Amino acid sequence: MRLTKDLYNHSLTLLTDFYQITMAYAYWKNGMAERESVFNLYFRENPFGGGYAIACGLDYIVDYLEHFKFTESDIEFLSTIKSNSGNQLFEDEFLKYLSNLSFTCDIDAIPEGSLVFPHEPIIRVIGPVIQSQIIETPLLNIINFQTLVATKASRIAYAAKGEPVLEFGLRRAQGVDGAIAASRAAYIGGCSSTSNVLAAKLFDIPVAGTHAHSWILTFDSEIEAFKAYADALPDNCVFLVDTYDTLEGVKNAIAVGNILREKGKEMIGIRIDSGDLAYLSQQARKMLDQAGFQNAEIVASNDLNEKLVQSLKMQDAQISVWGIGTKLVTAYEQPALGAVYKLAAIKNKHGHWEHKLKLSEQSMKVNNPGIQQLRRYYQNGKMIADMIYDINLGTRKKNTIFHPVDATKRKVLDEKLLEYNDLLIPVFRNGIKKYKFPGMPSIKNKVAGEMKAIHGGIKRFENPHIYPVGLEESLHHAKMDLILKLRKYENS
Amino acid sequence: MRLTKDLYNHSLTLLTDFYQITMAYAYWKNGMAERESVFNLYFRENPFGGGYAIACGLDYIVDYLEHFKFTESDIEFLSTIKSNSGNQLFEDEFLKYLSNLSFTCDIDAIPEGSLVFPHEPIIRVIGPVIQSQIIETPLLNIINFQTLVATKASRIAYAAKGEPVLEFGLRRAQGVDGAIAASRAAYIGGCSSTSNVLAAKLFDIPVAGTHAHSWILTFDSEIEAFKAYADALPDNCVFLVDTYDTLEGVKNAIAVGNILREKGKEMIGIRIDSGDLAYLSQQARKMLDQAGFQNAEIVASNDLNEKLVQSLKMQDAQISVWGIGTKLVTAYEQPALGAVYKLAAIKNKHGHWEHKLKLSEQSMKVNNPGIQQLRRYYQNGKMIADMIYDINLGTRKKNTIFHPVDATKRKVLDEKLLEYNDLLIPVFRNGIKKYKFPGMPSIKNKVAGEMKAIHGGIKRFENPHIYPVGLEESLHHAKMDLILKLRKYENS
Repeated sequence: MRLTKDLYNHSLTLLTDFYQITMAYAYWKNGMAERESVFNLYFRENPFGGGYAIACGLDYIVDYLEHFKFTESDIEFLSTIKSNSGNQLFEDEFLKYLSNLSFTCDIDAIPEGSLVFPHEPIIRVIGPVIQSQIIETPLLNIINFQTLVATKASRIAYAAKGEPVLEFGLRRAQGVDGAIAASRAAYIGGCSSTSNVLAAKLFDIPVAGTHAHSWILTFDSEIEAFKAYADALPDNCVFLVDTYDTLEGVKNAIAVGNILREKGKEMIGIRIDSGDLAYLSQQARKMLDQAGFQNAEIVASNDLNEKLVQSLKMQDAQISVWGIGTKLVTAYEQPALGAVYKLAAIKNKHGHWEHKLKLSEQSMKVNNPGIQQLRRYYQNGKMIADMIYDINLGTRKKNTIFHPVDATKRKVLDEKLLEYNDLLIPVFRNGIKKYKFPGMPSIKNKVAGEMKAIHGGIKRFENPHIYPVGLEESLHHAKMDLILKLRKYENS
Repeated sequence: MRLTKDLYNHSLTLLTDFYQITMAYAYWKNGMAERESVFNLYFRENPFGGGYAIACGLDYIVDYLEHFKFTESDIEFLSTIKSNSGNQLFEDEFLKYLSNLSFTCDIDAIPEGSLVFPHEPIIRVIGPVIQSQIIETPLLNIINFQTLVATKASRIAYAAKGEPVLEFGLRRAQGVDGAIAASRAAYIGGCSSTSNVLAAKLFDIPVAGTHAHSWILTFDSEIEAFKAYADALPDNCVFLVDTYDTLEGVKNAIAVGNILREKGKEMIGIRIDSGDLAYLSQQARKMLDQAGFQNAEIVASNDLNEKLVQSLKMQDAQISVWGIGTKLVTAYEQPALGAVYKLAAIKNKHGHWEHKLKLSEQSMKVNNPGIQQLRRYYQNGKMIADMIYDINLGTRKKNTIFHPVDATKRKVLDEKLLEYNDLLIPVFRNGIKKYKFPGMPSIKNKVAGEMKAIHGGIKRFENPHIYPVGLEESLHHAKMDLILKLRKYENS
C-alpha cells in the first residue's frame, strides 16, 4: 500500500470508531437515525497543569466535514464485516442509506487561536443523531491534538519571553501528520518557524535550519566544515559548535565569521546542542562580543521544554533563539488532551428539546446539558469571566454564573459594566459551510492578543490562577433539576 | 486546504528537516554530493524502561523511498525560499539537480516484528551522502513511532497473558495518521483488533465495537436502550453497563441476554468503563455465571496501561477482554523513542571506507562506526546474544563481543556451539526495491515467535534483564582506535 497517495486518497469518512457505525445501524433500525440531537465538545482539565488552552484544529475539521461522504469503497468494506454468527453484519438497505447520506448538521465553534477553559463548548453540533455520532471521533482526534500542541507552544513561547522559538520535532513526532499537524499547531501557538519543509510548504510557515553534526564529520576538521558551509551558503550561517568541543567550536565559528566579513557577509550565529546551555551560552556570548559579533544569535537546543527554558532564563543563559523538538511536537509531559463529546439535548417525539446529561460519581465528569453558547466578559480589555448559557434559556442583564462543578462558587457579571461577546460562531448551517479560514497570520495574531488579554497569574506554570467559567443561572438550575431527577430515577 | 487529498497528494520528499536541504546544497556546491556514506539508524535505550523493542515501520519506509522524487511543486517551493539578504537561497542549477535526483541507495533493514535492542542497526543506508541525509528525518519519524507503539502493544499483550486486547485510541491519538499508524503498529505488536474503521480497512485488521454511553442516554431507560440495540444487532451485543449504576446495568444486560436467548441468540458480553474494575468485574462475573451466562465476556476499559492490566490481574479481576486507548496509541508513559541516525563511514578520495563517529562526553552517545551487520545467536531456540560486526572486518568462529558502552563487559560466542543468523536483509539495491512485504499475519507471527524466544526476565517491566549486545572484536578495536585518535585530535 502507498503511504503517500493510496492511504490518504481514501475518504476519511471511515476514520471513526466502529461503535459509531454499529450505533448508526441501531439508530437506523429503530427509526431514530434522524432524531435531532445536540453534542458539545469540551475538555475537563487544562493540559500540563496550566491555566488555559488554545483552541486549534477547526480548519482541519471544516475540511473533513466538507468532504464527508461514504464512498463506494467505504460501503464495500462495511459490507464485508461479519457478525459473530458469520453473516453480513449490516443490511444492504442500511449500506444504501449510508451511501446516500450527506452531511446536514449545524456546527458552531470557537475560532482557532482563542483561549479556552475547562467545560467550555469548543464545538457544538446540532443535527441528526446518526451524523453527530459518526463525526464524533475525528472531531475529537483533531481538536485534541491541535489544541494540545498549540497550548504547549504557547507555554514555551511565554517562557522564551518573546524570543524566537524554532519547532524541529519532525523526527520524533507521532507519525507523518503527527509531525505536519504538530508544526501547524506549534506555529499557531507561538513558534516562529519550523524545520519541517513540507509543513512550511503546506501552511506557509517560515522554515529554518542550517547543518547537522554529520556535516562536520564528513570533513577532516571542524573549521574546514564551517568554511565549506560558509562558501556554499554565506547568508545562512548558523554554525553548530558542539561536535568536538563547544568553546573551541565557537572559536572556529568566529574565525569563519571573520572570513565571511571579508566577503561582506555576516554570520547569523551559532548553535549549541549539548552540555550546560547556561554556562556555554554565557561563555560563547562573551567570546562573540569580544570578537565583534555582538549581533550573532546563540541558538540552543537539547530536549528543551517550557520549564527548562524558564530555568535557563533564570540562570541568565545568553540564548536568543530556542530550538524545541520532541517535548513540543509530542506534548511530552502530557501527550493527550482528554477532550470529550457529550450528548447535551435531544428532540423528543413532540419536537421539544430535552436536556441530557450523563451522571458520574465524579462530579467533574457530569456534563453540562443544553444548546450552549459561550459568552466572554471583558473589563478594560482584560478577560474577566466566561459564561456558558443555553440559547433557549437566554441570559439577563445581570448574570450570576455558577461554577460547573462546585456551585457554591459564583460570580455576578453586570452587562452594563462589562463588555462581552459570544464565542461560538456559525461554521456549518444545514451542512453548508459558513466558515471562512481567516489565514495563519490572523490566527497567530489572535493568540498574541488573547495572551495579552488574560491576567498573568493564569499563565503561571505552577498553581496558575483559575480563570472563572460558570453556568448561567437558569442553565445551572436546569442542570441541577435534571441531576436530581436522574439520581431519583436511579434509585427507583 | 484539503486534509484528505491535497495534503497527502503532495510528495513526501519535502517531509524532512530544512537543514537536510541546506546541507544537500552545501554538499553539492562543494562537489561532495555523491560521496558514498554509511548511516545507521538505532536507538540508545529501550522504551518504557523495558528490556526490548519491536522493530516496526519498514513497510512505510519502503513506500516512502519507492516514491522519493522532488516534484515540480516541491522545486517551485524551494525556489521561493529567501536567504537572510533577501535573495533566492538555492541556485537554479541546484534545484535542477534535485529535480533530476533519483534514489540510488542500498538499504538493509531488520524485518518488521523482530525484537531489537539498544545500539543495534535497525536500518543501514549506503549511498550518496546527499540522499542519505535527505531521507534521515522521515526514516526516523516512521521507525520511532511505529517501533514505540508496537513495543507498547506487546507489553500490554504480555500483561494480558493472551487475552484479547482491543485498541481504541483514535480519539486521543496525535493526528489523523498518528491514529492510523498507531492502529497498525498496535496490531503488529499484539493487539487483536481496533476500533478504527479506516485502519481496519487499510491494514486488514479485525474491527470491534458496539455502543457508547450516548446510546443509552437517547432512550428513557437503560433496559430500553439495551433492548433496542439487541433488536438491531442481536449478534453483536456487548452491553456497556456503567451509564447509571454498573451492577444494575449487569442485571439489565442479563435480562436482555435472556430475551436474546429466546430468539436463539447469545449476547457476547458486557463492558465496564469506570469504577473499580477488579471489584465490579468479579461481581459481574458472579451475576453472569449465576444467570447462566458463563461464556459472556467482560470487557474492561478506562485509561488502562500495561501496569494497570498487570495489577488488575494480580487482584484477580474477572476481565476477559482489555480495551486500551490513550495510553497505547500515544505511548503515554514515553511518547517518543529517541532513535538516531548516525554517520558511520565515508569513502575517502581514494575510494576507501573511513570509519566515522561523533564523540560525546556521554559514552552512551558515542556512536558505533562501520558498515554494520547484526548477528543473532541462539541456543535451543532461545536468543543468547547479538553481535554487531563490520562486514569488511568480518567475524571469527569464536567471537568475543564487547559491550558498546562498557567494554569491560564481554561475552564469548562460539559458532560451533550456537546457531545464528544475520538480521539485516536487503531492502533496496542501488535504489531498486528488493523487499517484499510479508503481510500482517506473518509479521504478527514473527512477534509471537520472538517473544517466545527470549528469556522471561527480559520481558519484566521493572528492572528487566539486559539482553547482551556487543561489538565484534575487530570492530570494537577499530572504534577504540578512532576514539583515541579523535580525542588526541581534539587536544592538538
